Amino acid sequence: MSWIDDPEFDTSKPFGPQTLPYGVITAAGRQEVAVRVGDHALPLAPLAASLGERLAALVSGDSLDTLLAAGHTQWTELRARLTEIVTADTAPDGATLVPLSTVDTVLPFRVGDYVDFYSSRYHAENAGRIFRPDGEPLLPNWTHLPVGYHGRSGTVFVSGTEIRRPHGQRRGSDGPKFGPSARLDIEAEVGFVCGGPVASRVSTSDADQHVFGVVLLNDWSARDIQGWEAQPLGPFLGKSFATSISAWVTPLEAFDAARVDVPDPGHTRMDYLLEKQPCGLDLRLEVHWNGALVSTPPFKEMSYSCAQQLAHMTVNGATVRPGDLFGSGTVSGPERQQWGSFLELSWGGKEPIDVGGTQRTFLEDGDSVVITATAPGANASVVGLAEVAGTIAPAE
Amino acid sequence: MSWIDDPEFDTSKPFGPQTLPYGVITAAGRQEVAVRVGDHALPLAPLAASLGERLAALVSGDSLDTLLAAGHTQWTELRARLTEIVTADTAPDGATLVPLSTVDTVLPFRVGDYVDFYSSRYHAENAGRIFRPDGEPLLPNWTHLPVGYHGRSGTVFVSGTEIRRPHGQRRGSDGPKFGPSARLDIEAEVGFVCGGPVASRVSTSDADQHVFGVVLLNDWSARDIQGWEAQPLGPFLGKSFATSISAWVTPLEAFDAARVDVPDPGHTRMDYLLEKQPCGLDLRLEVHWNGALVSTPPFKEMSYSCAQQLAHMTVNGATVRPGDLFGSGTVSGPERQQWGSFLELSWGGKEPIDVGGTQRTFLEDGDSVVITATAPGANASVVGLAEVAGTIAPAE
Repeated sequence: MSWIDDPEFDTSKPFGPQTLPYGVITAAGRQEVAVRVGDHALPLAPLAASLGERLAALVSGDSLDTLLAAGHTQWTELRARLTEIVTADTAPDGATLVPLSTVDTVLPFRVGDYVDFYSSRYHAENAGRIFRPDGEPLLPNWTHLPVGYHGRSGTVFVSGTEIRRPHGQRRGSDGPKFGPSARLDIEAEVGFVCGGPVASRVSTSDADQHVFGVVLLNDWSARDIQGWEAQPLGPFLGKSFATSISAWVTPLEAFDAARVDVPDPGHTRMDYLLEKQPCGLDLRLEVHWNGALVSTPPFKEMSYSCAQQLAHMTVNGATVRPGDLFGSGTVSGPERQQWGSFLELSWGGKEPIDVGGTQRTFLEDGDSVVITATAPGANASVVGLAEVAGTIAPAE
Repeated sequence: MSWIDDPEFDTSKPFGPQTLPYGVITAAGRQEVAVRVGDHALPLAPLAASLGERLAALVSGDSLDTLLAAGHTQWTELRARLTEIVTADTAPDGATLVPLSTVDTVLPFRVGDYVDFYSSRYHAENAGRIFRPDGEPLLPNWTHLPVGYHGRSGTVFVSGTEIRRPHGQRRGSDGPKFGPSARLDIEAEVGFVCGGPVASRVSTSDADQHVFGVVLLNDWSARDIQGWEAQPLGPFLGKSFATSISAWVTPLEAFDAARVDVPDPGHTRMDYLLEKQPCGLDLRLEVHWNGALVSTPPFKEMSYSCAQQLAHMTVNGATVRPGDLFGSGTVSGPERQQWGSFLELSWGGKEPIDVGGTQRTFLEDGDSVVITATAPGANASVVGLAEVAGTIAPAE
C-alpha cells in the first residue's frame, strides 16, 4: 500500500505508478520538475536524498532539459528509482504532494525543432478527397515515406494556454481577404519528445535512445489561411500561431505493453524504414468538444511509427537534439467517428456535426477542446497520456 | 587615422568602419564576441573599460544571444561607441587584433525558429516554369503574400562548415530509389537575424526594432529529394540537412544608405504589408563556384522586404524571438547571369553552364561555393556582408 493517498494513483487508473509522467510546475514563484501521481504532482528536487546525488541532478533545474539530454540509461534508472519511491509504504523525506487542481504547469522543456508528420492514411485520404476531389486521394510518395514538414517551435504551448483566433489572408471570390480565420480547426495528434546525444541517421532500432517520451498534441489549424497560402511550399501561418502539448510527458518506456506493428504498406519498404520490433503504439485517443465526445481516434492505425519518423527525419544527415519535438500527424481511423479533425468530421465544413446538441463545423470563440488518451499497460493496467486542452479566445 | 593598421579597414572597402559586423571567434579554447575590422577580428570582452559596464555586458558572453535580446536602443548605442573606438587615433586598453586567417569562427547565436521565404519573382517564375511547364509560372497567392515555410534550425551552420551530400529517396522510373542526392544545389539568399523583445503582429514600421542584422545564407537544396517528397506539405529533407550563414552579422543600421522601395506588385497591397519608408535593400550578391563567378543576383529586385516578411510572419499572432532567423528566398534577377540557384542557371539540369572551363549542372563532391555581397554606403563607402562558403563532402 503506497504512502500516496490518492484514489487515482492505482494501476487501474491512467496515472497510477505504471505511468509516472514528468512535468514542470510553478510553486512559490519558481519552476520545479515534478512527477505526476494520480491527481497530484510530486516535486522532485526535495527528494534529493532519496534519489541520490546523480539522479537528483537530472531533475533539480527548472525544466526537463537536463533530463532530456541525459540519455536512455539515466532515464531508465531514474524511472526505476521513482517507481520504488512512489510505491513504498512510507513517504521519503521531503515529499510533498500538490493537488493538480491547485498547480500551474508550464511548457516543460525548451523546444528545439518541431516537425509535424502526416502519417494517418485515413486522414491523408480524407484530406485528399476534400481538397482534391478529382485526383487520387493519396499522392504517390505517401506510402513510401512519412510525409512531414517543419512547424514553429516558438509557438508550442503547454496545455491550458488560451488559443487566440489568428488573423490572415484567405481566398475570396474577388481576390484575397484579410481577417480572423473563419475555419479554425484542431488536429488530434501524438507528440514525441526527443533526448539523448545529438545524432544523425538514427536507425529504427536506436529510436528508443532518442525518444524520451510521449505527449498529446493539438496542431491548431486555420483551414482558410492554410488553403490560400500553402502552395507550393506547404503550411505556414495556417499552423504557426499555436501548437499545444500535454503538460506531462509520459516516458516511452511506459508504453512497452502497448507496442504493435504498424500496418503493412502493401509494398517493400526501404531498408532504413524496416523495424526489427513493433514500434507502433496502441494509444486510444478521445476528442472532447465543449465537453461532448466527438471522436475516438485509434493511434494503432497510423502507417508510420515514431521510430520510422525519426529514422526518416535524420536519414539525410540532419541531426536530432534534446528538446526536438515531432508530431505524428492527425490521428484518424477508418470509421467516421474516429477522425481527428473537424475538417474531416464536418467533411470540409459541409456536413455539420452534433456537439452536445448544437450543430457545428469549425471552432467558435469560447469553444474548448480537450484531447485525452490511454493505452493498455502490463498486468491489465492502463497507461495515460495527460490531456491537451485549449479554449478559443476571440481575434484581437 | 585609425589605430587599426589594416588596408582593408577603409571606407572604400566592405569591412571598413562603416560596416562593423559582429561574430564569435574561438581563441584559446573559448568563444568570444568580436567585431570585424577589415581582415581582423577585434575581441570585445577585453574592451570593457572603454565600453563601460552596461555595454560591455552585452558582449561579454560566448555568443551574440545577449546582444540580440538587448533591443534596438542598445544596438545603436553599442555600434556608436564601437565606431568611436575603432576610428580613434590610439588603441584602447586591452585591444588585440586577430588576423581572420588565423581565427576560427562559430555559429554566432542560438537559432530559434528558421523561416525561409520565396520572395524573388524571377526565382519563383523560373521554378514554376521548370517544375510546372504547363501551368502559370506564378501561383495566385504569390503577388499577395510572401510565401514561406519553416526550415530546420538545428542544422544552420556557420560559413566554412563542410556540407555532407545527403542521402534520401528520389523518384525513379519504377518506383522511388534511395541513395546520395544527384542534384545537389545552392540557393543564394540573404538572412535576417532577429532580436529585441518577444513580439507578435509586428508592423512594417517596427521591423527595425526586431531585425538586428543581416547575413548571407546558402539554403543548400537536394532537388531530387525535394522533388519526390514535397507534395503536399512542402520541402523537408531536401533542405533540412544544411543551411549555411555568414560568420559575421552586419547590423541592419549599416544599410541605411542602401534602402530602396520594393517593386510594385501591380495591385493594391493588404494594409499590413504597406511600408511607410523604403525597406528593400540594394545588396549586390556574387556567387562563386570553384572560384569562378557564375552569377550576380541583385537583392533590390526582391518583391518583398524583410519588414514585409516579418509583418507577415507574425500577423497571425505568432511571436518573433531573439535568435529567430529568416531567409529572403533565392535571390534571382531578370537576367540569366543573375539567377541564384544552379537549378535555374542549368535550367533544371538540361543546359550545363561553364564553371571555370568545365561544364556543370549540379554540385559534385569537392566543389566549393562562396557567396559574397556589398551594398552602397553613405559618402561613397561600401558596406559588406561576410561571405558564406561551403565545400561538398561525399555522402557517407
